[in-house]
Amino acid sequence: MLTLEKIQAAKIKLAPYIYETPVIRLYGLDDILGCNVFIKAENMQKTNSFKLRGALNKMLSMPIEQLQNGVIAASSGNHGKGVAYAAKLLNIQATIVLPDTAPIVKVEGIRALGANVVLCKLAERHAVTERLSVAHNYAIIHPYDDYHIMAGQGTVGLEILEQLPHVDTIVVPMGGGGLISGVATAIKSLAPHVKVIGAEPAVVSRYAKSLKAGERLLVEEQKSLADALLTLQPGERNFPIVQKLVDRVVSVEEDFLYSGMKTLLLDGKQLAEPSSSIGIGAALQGIVPIKKNDNVCFLISGGNVGLNQLQTL
Amino acid sequence: MLTLEKIQAAKIKLAPYIYETPVIRLYGLDDILGCNVFIKAENMQKTNSFKLRGALNKMLSMPIEQLQNGVIAASSGNHGKGVAYAAKLLNIQATIVLPDTAPIVKVEGIRALGANVVLCKLAERHAVTERLSVAHNYAIIHPYDDYHIMAGQGTVGLEILEQLPHVDTIVVPMGGGGLISGVATAIKSLAPHVKVIGAEPAVVSRYAKSLKAGERLLVEEQKSLADALLTLQPGERNFPIVQKLVDRVVSVEEDFLYSGMKTLLLDGKQLAEPSSSIGIGAALQGIVPIKKNDNVCFLISGGNVGLNQLQTL
Repeated sequence: MLTLEKIQAAKIKLAPYIYETPVIRLYGLDDILGCNVFIKAENMQKTNSFKLRGALNKMLSMPIEQLQNGVIAASSGNHGKGVAYAAKLLNIQATIVLPDTAPIVKVEGIRALGANVVLCKLAERHAVTERLSVAHNYAIIHPYDDYHIMAGQGTVGLEILEQLPHVDTIVVPMGGGGLISGVATAIKSLAPHVKVIGAEPAVVSRYAKSLKAGERLLVEEQKSLADALLTLQPGERNFPIVQKLVDRVVSVEEDFLYSGMKTLLLDGKQLAEPSSSIGIGAALQGIVPIKKNDNVCFLISGGNVGLNQLQTL
Repeated sequence: MLTLEKIQAAKIKLAPYIYETPVIRLYGLDDILGCNVFIKAENMQKTNSFKLRGALNKMLSMPIEQLQNGVIAASSGNHGKGVAYAAKLLNIQATIVLPDTAPIVKVEGIRALGANVVLCKLAERHAVTERLSVAHNYAIIHPYDDYHIMAGQGTVGLEILEQLPHVDTIVVPMGGGGLISGVATAIKSLAPHVKVIGAEPAVVSRYAKSLKAGERLLVEEQKSLADALLTLQPGERNFPIVQKLVDRVVSVEEDFLYSGMKTLLLDGKQLAEPSSSIGIGAALQGIVPIKKNDNVCFLISGGNVGLNQLQTL
């Protein structure tokens, strides 16, 4: 089970290793988005994404016997970079299974940390991970469907509340649901009046559809600019938490993924991944329930984006 | 004369109109630059540069009879945008004289504020401004060589001290010297132990040369990536202030202007003009006297940069 206490314990455990990333007031976006705009800048986190929090919390919680043969993780890139960083810190070997469509900057970032990279088709990444895990006795570090992972990600929520006590709404990018499960648990335990809104790409709206159906649906694979949010089914442990605690999940069209990233870069002066500026895109699309003078914190989940990707703008 | 009191008065006068831009801790640059890295994010200021502070302070100090025929300013872009914004606020007409090499994003930004734009050769911009001022009875708003302008720019220094009381060193981009005159006056009045370092493009190192010569030298026109820092001679009122209060002026090579901007964007996740990330370039070049654990604040003076300019990276 995921509890506030587990997230608070994760915060203490992680403190020596991660950055307390800033909450930044972006006045320049207020008129554009129609609220008081803040971001929680996890694009500036070590490894340039929030994923390190969960990966490290998980690995620090595992007995050494489980870790000594090495770890393996399926990832679109950021979780892999987090696992690779944590493995380097703990002096163990990491193998990261990435889709062959992963951005170069992510693949190179993981290799630079000394991890092995295995490329495969997007839909096969979990199967490949499973197979290699059995063959080599690697411990699997799941990207989201794990309470230690969620507890680590939830520390972002604790920080937002400390740094911005008057926050009204937090907008969180959603893939498998690890980040929003942790954040919503932290927020709803300590400040239940704060709204938690999830944003996922419209082309793979696995949470919106599953919430409507009342069960975890598997959606069809699609291309999206949001390369980090392509998971096809809500996590088993994540889904009930999202059902219970998240106020609304919104589906963001591809056009607004582009304009979200562009607005954050050109008007906000912040470089983030398309997947991470999805909340800004959602607000531009007009689907986030916010109003003037609301203090809205957009969780900018990662910043692993190459100059080559900027050319698509 | 420029005094602390004039800067403090400017702060009060400007408060309703400008943003208190954030000081942001950029942990990700610490190892790269060899100090504790902070930025003062004037790239997020209204009009996306600090120049609004000086322009507005100047125009708010002028009697309406001087303003009613309109104002004119020579600029590389950012001062012009500040003047155009202030003119719109005061409901008067502005004419901005720009070099024909000004980045499109700056020209368009000025036009969008309703100002007239006159393009000419870089070296002729002050002469053209003078001529049009006489012909139409426009009041000239000088970009730097004016105590009200400097007092406005100096408010950045007051904010840095409030936001980061333990700052050891502040690195400031230099063109004509308006910003650093204001900042150094504020800083040395209130916290004389804080080092103030100026950074100018090596190809037009008018301050380094003039300081050595002990008089205001005119340097030759050159091309530089730092389009906002191309002034060829230190300002008459600025030079003695810089002589007296600035601890060191460093000359930044073109290569390091590129890498400064790139580092700030890809590692710091902040979009700034090449002219504004010159301090980061200076630190990369190894010419800023800083050491590990120093709290160094890089003043990021502006963020008016178009996507087309990013392609040069």
